[in-house]
This record gives sequence, C-alpha cells and structure tokens, in this order.
Amino acid sequence: MNVLRLVIPVVVLNLAFSQSSSKEDWEAKFSAIPNAEKHREYMQRLSAKPHHLGSPYGKDNAEWMLGLFKSWGLDAKLEEFEVLFPTPKERLVELLEPMKFTAKLQEPAVDVDPTSGQLVEQLPTYNAYSIDGDVTAPLVYVNYGIPDDYDQLERLGVSVKGCIVLARYGASWRGIKPKLAAEKGAVGCIIYSDPKDDGFYHGDVFPEGPWRPKDGVQRGSVMDMPLHPGDPLTPGIGATTKAKRLSVKEAKTLTRIPVLPISYADAEPLLRSLKGPAALENWRGALPLTYKVGPGPGKARLKLSFDWDIKKIYNVIVTVRGARYPDEWIIRGNHHDGWVNGAQDPISGMVAQMEEMRGIAELLKQGWRSKRTLIYCAWDAEEQGLLGSTEWAEAHADELKQKTVLYINSDSNGRGFLFVGGSHSLEKFINGVAKDIEDPEKKISVWKRSQLWRIGNSRTPEDRADARTRADIRISALGSGSDYTAFLDHLGIASLNIGYGGEDGGGIYHSIYDDFYWYTNFSDTDFSYGRALSQTGGIAVIRISDAELLPYDFTNSAETIRRYLGEVKKLLSSMQDQVKERNKQIAEGVFSAIADPKDPYVPPSVEEIPPFINFAPIENAVEVLARSAERYDKAVKEGAGKSWPDATLRSVNQKLIQTERKLTHQNGLPIRPWFKHLIYAPGFYTGYGVKTLPGVREAIEQKRWKEAEGEAVRIAQALESQAALIDAAAKELENSLR
Amino acid sequence: MNVLRLVIPVVVLNLAFSQSSSKEDWEAKFSAIPNAEKHREYMQRLSAKPHHLGSPYGKDNAEWMLGLFKSWGLDAKLEEFEVLFPTPKERLVELLEPMKFTAKLQEPAVDVDPTSGQLVEQLPTYNAYSIDGDVTAPLVYVNYGIPDDYDQLERLGVSVKGCIVLARYGASWRGIKPKLAAEKGAVGCIIYSDPKDDGFYHGDVFPEGPWRPKDGVQRGSVMDMPLHPGDPLTPGIGATTKAKRLSVKEAKTLTRIPVLPISYADAEPLLRSLKGPAALENWRGALPLTYKVGPGPGKARLKLSFDWDIKKIYNVIVTVRGARYPDEWIIRGNHHDGWVNGAQDPISGMVAQMEEMRGIAELLKQGWRSKRTLIYCAWDAEEQGLLGSTEWAEAHADELKQKTVLYINSDSNGRGFLFVGGSHSLEKFINGVAKDIEDPEKKISVWKRSQLWRIGNSRTPEDRADARTRADIRISALGSGSDYTAFLDHLGIASLNIGYGGEDGGGIYHSIYDDFYWYTNFSDTDFSYGRALSQTGGIAVIRISDAELLPYDFTNSAETIRRYLGEVKKLLSSMQDQVKERNKQIAEGVFSAIADPKDPYVPPSVEEIPPFINFAPIENAVEVLARSAERYDKAVKEGAGKSWPDATLRSVNQKLIQTERKLTHQNGLPIRPWFKHLIYAPGFYTGYGVKTLPGVREAIEQKRWKEAEGEAVRIAQALESQAALIDAAAKELENSLR
Repeated sequence: MNVLRLVIPVVVLNLAFSQSSSKEDWEAKFSAIPNAEKHREYMQRLSAKPHHLGSPYGKDNAEWMLGLFKSWGLDAKLEEFEVLFPTPKERLVELLEPMKFTAKLQEPAVDVDPTSGQLVEQLPTYNAYSIDGDVTAPLVYVNYGIPDDYDQLERLGVSVKGCIVLARYGASWRGIKPKLAAEKGAVGCIIYSDPKDDGFYHGDVFPEGPWRPKDGVQRGSVMDMPLHPGDPLTPGIGATTKAKRLSVKEAKTLTRIPVLPISYADAEPLLRSLKGPAALENWRGALPLTYKVGPGPGKARLKLSFDWDIKKIYNVIVTVRGARYPDEWIIRGNHHDGWVNGAQDPISGMVAQMEEMRGIAELLKQGWRSKRTLIYCAWDAEEQGLLGSTEWAEAHADELKQKTVLYINSDSNGRGFLFVGGSHSLEKFINGVAKDIEDPEKKISVWKRSQLWRIGNSRTPEDRADARTRADIRISALGSGSDYTAFLDHLGIASLNIGYGGEDGGGIYHSIYDDFYWYTNFSDTDFSYGRALSQTGGIAVIRISDAELLPYDFTNSAETIRRYLGEVKKLLSSMQDQVKERNKQIAEGVFSAIADPKDPYVPPSVEEIPPFINFAPIENAVEVLARSAERYDKAVKEGAGKSWPDATLRSVNQKLIQTERKLTHQNGLPIRPWFKHLIYAPGFYTGYGVKTLPGVREAIEQKRWKEAEGEAVRIAQALESQAALIDAAAKELENSLR
Repeated sequence: MNVLRLVIPVVVLNLAFSQSSSKEDWEAKFSAIPNAEKHREYMQRLSAKPHHLGSPYGKDNAEWMLGLFKSWGLDAKLEEFEVLFPTPKERLVELLEPMKFTAKLQEPAVDVDPTSGQLVEQLPTYNAYSIDGDVTAPLVYVNYGIPDDYDQLERLGVSVKGCIVLARYGASWRGIKPKLAAEKGAVGCIIYSDPKDDGFYHGDVFPEGPWRPKDGVQRGSVMDMPLHPGDPLTPGIGATTKAKRLSVKEAKTLTRIPVLPISYADAEPLLRSLKGPAALENWRGALPLTYKVGPGPGKARLKLSFDWDIKKIYNVIVTVRGARYPDEWIIRGNHHDGWVNGAQDPISGMVAQMEEMRGIAELLKQGWRSKRTLIYCAWDAEEQGLLGSTEWAEAHADELKQKTVLYINSDSNGRGFLFVGGSHSLEKFINGVAKDIEDPEKKISVWKRSQLWRIGNSRTPEDRADARTRADIRISALGSGSDYTAFLDHLGIASLNIGYGGEDGGGIYHSIYDDFYWYTNFSDTDFSYGRALSQTGGIAVIRISDAELLPYDFTNSAETIRRYLGEVKKLLSSMQDQVKERNKQIAEGVFSAIADPKDPYVPPSVEEIPPFINFAPIENAVEVLARSAERYDKAVKEGAGKSWPDATLRSVNQKLIQTERKLTHQNGLPIRPWFKHLIYAPGFYTGYGVKTLPGVREAIEQKRWKEAEGEAVRIAQALESQAALIDAAAKELENSLR
C-alpha cells in the first residue's frame, strides 16, 4: 500500500455528519463489539492451509465464511466466476557460465512454524501470467528495472537486448519489470528479493525476526494490470461460465517474456557472475559482493512452462437491504485468497472485516436498521490480478454505477498508524471517522497520532504547517494493487482503502512464511489494531448508512486537484530546465571532460526542450469546481440542524452518488480504455503507484506533448461536468432552504 | 584530503602575474623535464621495503634522496629530530561472550604482490599513541563514533559508559573516535574498516581490484592532533636532542583509552555479537548481517602494550639560495615516510616533488636564477602526527615567520582531477598555475577540467552559476592531515596543498597493500598525473620565485571570508529554528505519540533556544578588508606593465609576506593555544575536517555562546589588522605610481 497516515482523543465523537443522537448510540454500541480473540480464531482457521485461487482450502474457506455469516443471521451467498489461472509445470533457473549453478526455487520448512511444511498444498514460487519459455542468454543486472534504471544503462552503453535481466523487487509493482525489460528487448526476466529491501539489512530474519530469510521468495502476479486487471480472457465483462472468452493467445495482459521470482540465496551466484565496474550506489543491495551490471559473462537459462487452466473462484457476498434507501449501496470488501497461508495478506484484513460484519449483525439484532443497502464482500483471487472483485464489478457494472455510494476496501492490517487512500470527496468524511477511533497503543485518536506523525516527519516547513493547521489530514490518491481498482478506476465509484501499519515491518510478503506463526509473533500480536480496523470500517459504514445527506465534500477535492495540477506544471517546468541545462552542458563539453576514460560511458545527446503546454482549461475548470464546492458546502452548513424534506434528500443524494462518475470518460485513458477515471490511475510504468491527472501527467513524462494538451481538455470537461452536478445539488438544497 | 577540484587549454599561458617573457620560457623549459619513467624508478626504490619512522629503510631512503639531490648539484642536508614513537609489544582482541573468537590482527601476503610478504619489516596493524591497557567490557557499535552518532545513541537510551566501543573508519579523522568515546565514558575503542566505506561495496578488492580486502587494516595515528600535532613530548618547540621534554605521563596528546584498528573479517564476529533492534539506516555497513547497537551481549577484551621509545627522524632539506631576495623563502614539501611500503601515501607525491626538484636543478644548470630562496623538504614521520614538519617548523619558527612567502605541500597523488586547498590569498595565483597545466587524459587544462566537473556536479543552480562565471575556481580551506599544518595553523604562513585524484579510488590506505604493485596496477599507472603534479608544483614555485610583486590577492579572500560568515550565521539560525521546532513538537507530544512502544526510545528534552550573537564586528571587518583588497588590487592593476622600483618591491613584498600572519593570534584558539590561525583550523571534533572561523563556529556548535561573541571580536581585530597592512602596501604602490 502506498497511502497516507491518519488518526481523537476517544470518546469525543465527531459531530460533523451526525444528525441524530441515536446514531452515536449505535456507533458506540458497535464499537464495543469487535473482539481481538475472534480475530485470532478466524485467522488461525483461515490461514491453517494454503488457500490460493483454485485450491481446495480456498473454496473451503469461502464456504466456511458463508456458513458463519448465515449463522449471524446475514443474507449471504457465493458468487462464482471462471478465470484463467496458470500454474507451473516446469521451473528452471541455471547459471551456465562462468560456473554451473542450479537455483533451488524452494522455500524450506521452519521447525518452529507449524504451517511452513505444507509442501503438497503450497503453490510453488512463481510469477503468475508469465508466458511459457526456454531462453539461454547473458545476464544483465537492471536494479529495480524501472525506467530510470534503463536511462542509467544507456549512459553505461549497456543494452539488455537478447539478455536475461536480473531485477530486484521494489520501487515499482513487479509486473513493470518484465514489461519494461521486454520493451527493451530482453528475452527473460528474473526477479529476486534483495536483503537490502526486505531482508537482514532491516532486522532479524524469520523465524528469529520478521524479515525475509535467504530462501524466501516473493510470489506474485505479473499480469499487465495497468492495461486492465481481472481475468485476461474476459476484459470488460464478467467471467461467468458462458462469457465470451479470448483465447490465451489473444489475451493482452500476459507477459511477453518468461519471468520467475527467486530468493537471494539463488540470486547471489547470478550476481557474482557479472563483471565490469561497480554499479551506481543506488543500485547496490546488501549482499556481500560488488554489485555489477554486466552483461555477462554470467550466462543463464530460464525455462518455464505452465498449465493454462480455467479455475472457479468464489466471492462471498453478504447483503443487508437498506430500510429507507435500498437502492443506495454501500460496498465493503477484503479478499480472502492468499498466495500461500496468507495470514497477513489478506487474512489480517479479512478477519477485521469479519468482526465488523459480526458487529453489524449484532446491531441488526438489537434493532438497528440500515437506511441504505450494505454489501459486504469477501473476494477471491485478488492475488492473481484482482480477479474476484473485477469480474464481479464488470458483471454488475450498470447497476453498480447507478446505485453505489462508495466502496470501502481493506486488504491486510498491522500494528501502527492508520493509512487511508481514496477519493478526495470522502477525505473529510474519513477524517471524521478517524477522530473517533482510539489508538490501542497510545490511547489518543488514530487521527491525532497520524497528525503528530506528519508533524514529526514532514520534509518541508510547508508540509509541517499543513499538517498542523489543515482541518483534515490528507489522504493519498489510489493507484492500484487491491480490490478498489475496478470500483474506482473502471466504474468511477468513490472509494476508500483503509488499514493500519508502519510499526511491523517484515519480509514474508507472498511467501510461505506469511502465516499464523509469523503474524502472532511479529505483527499485531494481540490483534488490537485488528480491532481498530473493525471499528474504523464499521463506524464508516454505519455513519454513511445513517447519514441524511451523503457525507461528500468537494472543497477538499477541488483543493487537492489544484495541488495535482501544480505538481504537473512543476514536472513540465523541471523537465524543461533539466533538458536546457543538459543541452548546455553537452555544448560546454562537461560530460566528455569529466568522464573517467577507464569506465564505460556514453554521454547524453542533445534533446528537444519540452514545449509549454496549455493548462488553462484545467485551471479554469478547477476554479469552477471550487466555486461549486463552496456553494454546496454553504448550503449544507446553512441547513445544519434542520431536517431536509425526504424528496430533497433523495434527489440530492442521487446526484451526489453520481459525482465521482463525472470524473470518468467512457473512452478511458489513452492506450488503456478500461481505466475510465481521469483523476486517478495506476501508473503505466509504476504499476501500483498512482498517477494523478494521469492523461496529462503520463503524456508529459513520456513526451507526448500533443496528447497532454488533449487530455488537459478532457480533464477540464470532466471537472466542469462534476461541478455542474454539484451546482444542481446545491441549488436543490438552496431551494429547500427558502 | 578534503579539497577542491581545480584545472587550461594548454599553451595559452596565463599572464596575470607574468612580467617578463623570459619567465615563460623558463616555465616552458621546466615543464618538459618531469619524466614519468623517473617517477616509476623512484617509487620502486622508495617503496621497496617498509619505511616508517625509525625503520632502517626509512633512514636509507632519506640518505639515498640526500645523495641523489646532491648528485643533481643541490645543496642538501639531513635534519634530525628525536620523537616519541610507541610500537606494539602486545595486541589482543578477543570476543569472550556469547562465543569465543580471537581476532587475527594480521594482513596476509598476496602471491602476485612481491612486497606484501615482508612481514619482519612491517609495522603491525595498530594505532600509534594509543595508551597501554587491558580492558574487558560489553561492546557497543557507535557507527563512525562522531558527535551526531552519540546524539542518536542518546535517543536509544544507550550509554557507552564502561563499554568498549566498536567504531567504523570514516566520517572523521580516526583520532576523534577514541577521544569522543573516552569523553563519553568508554573504556576501550576498536576501529574497523567497513566494506561499505572502502571495500567490496565499491569494487573488486585487492589484488583483483583496488579496494580493501577482508583482512586489510588501516593503521594510523590517534594522537590528539586537534590539540597539537608533532612530538607529544615537545609541544611548541623543536624536538632536538637537547630539547626539554615532558614525561610520557605528562603528554597531552596520547589517547585516554586503548585503541586498536582491525579488519572487517575480524570485526564481523564482534558485530554479530550485538543484539537489539537494527541500527539506523545510515549506521549500516555492507557486511551481510543486521547492524545493531548493543550494548552486548557481546563482550570483548582489548589488551595493548607498547614500547614507548624515542626515535630519530630524518628530514631531507634542500636549499636553493635566492639570487635577489635570499630572505624571501618559498618552501615546498612532501613526506617520505610511510606506514608500510606506502607507494601511494606518500611516495606518489614524493616522487612528483623529486622530479620537480630535478627540473629546478636542470634549470639552474641552464642558467636560471631563482630570485627567492627555495627550500625543498622531504619530511619524515608525517604518519604518526606530522612530526617531521612540525618539529622543523617549531625549531625554526622565528625565522620562518619572518621570511616565508608560502608553503606548498603535497602528500600523495593519483589519477583524475587537481585538488587544491589553501589560503585564499593564494587562490588567484594557483588558479593561474592550473590554467597552464595540461590534463593528461583530456588534453585540456586541468583548470578547465575542474571547472567542468564543478558545473556537472553542482548541487544547486547557484553553485553551478558560480562555477560557470567566477574567474577563479574556489579552493577549499585547509583543516589538517598533512604537513602544511604547522606552517599554516601554527606559524600563520600562507599555504597550499596540491594533488591529483578522484578517478582512482581504493582501499589500501595505511595497509601493507599500499605498494608498488597496487599503485602501478590501479592508480596513476603511467605516472602521467605524477608528471602533472611535478609540473603544477614546479610552475607554482618558479612563478612565485620569479614574480616582482608577490602574487597575493585579497579580493578573493575577503569574498570567501564573507561566505564563511554567512555559513556561521546560517548555522546559528538553523540551530535556533531546530531547537524551537523540537521544543514545540515536545509540547505537542509528537515524540511520545509516534514512537513505537516496542522499540527503545528516549524522547529529546526541551532545550534553551540559542541566543542571537553579535556578528557585526566581523561584518564590519570584512567590509574594511574588502575595501583594502580592492584598493591594493587597483594599485597593482594600475602598475601593470610598469616596472616597480626595487625599494618599493622589497618593502611591499615584506608587507605581503606578513599578511597571513595577521590572521593569527599569539594566544591561539580557545583550549588549544598551539593553533594560532583565526580563520582556518582542523575541527576539534572532526580532526582533518576544517572549521573556518573556528573560534566562532565551534563555540556555536558547542553552545558556548559567550565565547562565540568574544571570538567574533578577535576575528574582527585580525581582519582589520590584515586590512591595515594591505592598505599600507597599497599606499606604497600608489605613491610609487605618482
């Protein structure tokens, strides 16, 4: 996750959106329900065996949850899809020159850890949606394998053409590494976990400590999710039994070269096989060797083949029908599948949602009625490419777009600070919630703790002043990497992603060691932050369900978009400055004069200076949006304490529900039409990492100047269209006030 | 060295200080003389065996040079002193708990390297001027062991009291580590070379590459040189046979606790014996382990005893009597002693000076007459604490202060860029020289190459603009670490330190591997930069010797001192801001709220905000100096092309010689009266690292506010006194122009 830290002196409830005292009573009643011991029980059951997509225990977990939810009196069902899921038939990594070495490709069982030895049920270490392949080629070390790294390789005169790249995990979503390597002409990609990134460099390794041991491997999907997530054979539609499917060959989101993840014990001989000068300082990991780039003399073989099966997946869907507004849906989800035992990812989040659900079930038994419809989802097959949530969202797209108020996601949890990402129209709302949750360690609100963290860790005096004085803690924009993606990016549904963490680092991500033993020894060991997450999700759901007027706020989003625009303008001007300066230095002879003649070096070439771009359409649109937001805010404040007529509420809320949709465009983003949101998107070359105002920002980064101009116009139109809808909502409130 | 990079399209001679065409002829003739093959021969001879202070081969080298210089027709002699020099009787480092380990303390011979096996003649690995001791105590890892590191330890609640500290080499002069450890209550100090700092992290290790191998050890002095360098028993006076000596017990510059350097192979078990959370990121080295602080459970014994002998040292002194101004002395020096074979340090510098001397001898034979007296020195015993140069300077202090124009030092040499540090009144002069030296790799002037390096590597646009537009490349201020110290800091003689490097990194500093094999395989392998250094030193000597008016310039120094004052003011204001902000955060509860309760942490305490300090005296004095500098500069320029009357020249030059002396104060700096210069000094807690305006800067750093005010007044008086002398010189020129 790549998110913001949020956090009240408890008991002090935030009244911003409260309109009845009974509501607070229900919230208080709810808050007392989540039980840390239940978290522990659920986790032990759900992570007892490997429970990945297609596994017997994965299905068993879904059915067990189904039964449990029903036993709580909830309306629960399984909803199935059928998706492409390759599993390894053959995996081979061999070093052929200058010495022989065959990678082990196996995580060993650990004595003290009872589930680490379930070899038969474990998925082997691999990257899902790699293509089959058998390649033999010289190795090149490419650091994280991100665009900047290839720029550096160019300076060294090194091409990866015809080579197998060796990249380390980190700095981007993993799928970017083979994607970029293939674009640069590599024939294979090996990804390893360097101890600098999540191993002994940071602390004791498992089982003595939480960090990645030498044979630990990060599994993971390498599907081209920035193109579209979900089943590769059914883009844009639900992968139901009878859905029209592409052939595997037609699928656009498989890799173009074979890819395999390895441990650092397996990577070390490969790294030692490379010669040449030492790699740049920020390319060096923590292994006891001189990191070098190559290519070669190390030569390796990478051989992979997969069973390309269609597998059934099982989403567990629970519906609590709204008593007053059944067609206004509040959706809450967390996935239940793991790569192996997955105690932290995703079960720590799943069990928090389960206790939240039990709390809601209890309230219902005590007489609470949800005004709006609540839909609780336990997604399957998130790990392979957000399959469960994406297929469900695609299958129900029209209804979801019409009815959904918001989607609240969690994925996993830990000890520490509240992290929130999401739509900025919900920023004020979730800040209100965070002020009412107690931090288990410090007994202050999680909001306050987050604010103090920001004060203590700001990089600039401006950021610190912002942390001290702004009414709301800033939430981060969402990229991708979890199940909110289809809701936010494809359907334009306002979304939030929540979770705790930051005090419980570790290196067991997507390995067999992410299990009950690890979690209960090294993460949120007493599940107190699990309880805090149950409270955070539950209070959010109850508060928005019980709200008269839906608690959107557009002043924060207008202000935030203005900041994003500022960033994009700065990006362009710094690119202009950089190119200008570099061209000048080329003319002065700087690069050739200071290069060491004994080191390989290719000086940069003169480049065209980036042109100025017309940002005025967005600038004007942001001003229009800010005015509409203020108008709406004023109307809401003038109505505070009054009771709005039901017809007004229904009509205004209908408009509010559609506001986020206005930020989408039916044609989607350039070259990736599945992504419809014009404000937030995962980066095409970052993967999880968000790109705000992506049409303009990525066009500038990739030097497509004309496209940037066009995208600026599209963004401006979307903002103006949203502003018009907000104006219409404001007008209704104003009329009602008269 | 910690210096600046300088560098001219050859042939284009700088005419700033040229006043006769014959001069350029002599310079051109000189430039053709230095011969790379001679550098190689001298180096092979001088580094053939270990030649440290007191060794037979050290004396043999001195005598061989003496003979050689005489054979060139030069007036050469040996000048001897007798100094305290402890050598090890017993060295023991044992890990006692949680496991047994005895450190090897031995650098192994390397097959391909013919001089690495001269075990009998090698000084063992140790730190000179450590006291005897036998201590057993828990270990604490203190990173570099500098003041910032102890601040961090305080946040962790870790005290080194009663412990043996394990510090890594780097970030300060080594003597600071035991000094500070003792101040904090440690009972012993072990210093090791981490591969992150000069080992495999940077490249292949010796003998495959130039970097420090696992058993390599950095010897070195730990004498408290920031108090005073030179013989510990004869502070302030020459250590002649009959000098009045302190007893060893009375000596002030021995360490207060035992200290020993070790290799990283020996350090690894010690580091592994420490427990607790991982050390901060910038504390972590490149060994394959989790760096932790302790204290303990690792417990070690450090046992050291030494022979505390008085040894003879041999400076080789060559005098070329000035034909016109015999009482104006130009001194040039490099040391000849090494820790072991010392090919790079110091022989690479020594042989460059020798070829420079041979060039001068040749010119003399061809009829050149030096106007001024040249004194060439090959110092002994630099490594142990600048003994040879310091005792000589102290022995001849009065005459030196009266007559010396400048001292030009070199110490070692390598491949790459010209580095210059020194007195800023010589900045313009040495820039002029650098413009006339050809870079052997790039065939542009070394000045130009340095300028382009600065353009390419500036951290800020302001620095880049400065590099592009300033007539002179900035030279760095001198701290300590080589033989200029007594001249500049104790006697107030304007000094320069010159050398090439930056393209030939390595990790053989003060080890047995710093030898002919290493140098001729990994450094300036064809001695082309050796030749460049001979040319640089020689042209500088010839040009200043031949000058009518001595080529001092005070506009650059006034501007530079103004910059230093700006730095000091910024230092104070940023300390004020930091304390204010930290106090505010303490009041807000930031530190306690965001600390992880599972990690040890001691929040900082409220501190008094640093008061404002009266910098006006220095500000006014700098303005006075700047006006005098401009007046003098104007007079010189108006006289350009004319011939000054001899009486004027003699009188003005006498004044110019004394200008640097005006920057000293007879009482020296607070707590270290040997250091008389008020503008430059090695830092009391950095060692080599310079502190400019040290009285004020260090008082602020160490929160002695009142002292800072007093020192500001002393500095101002010195600047005004220098300005008055410059004014007097200017006035004489003005009178002569009328």
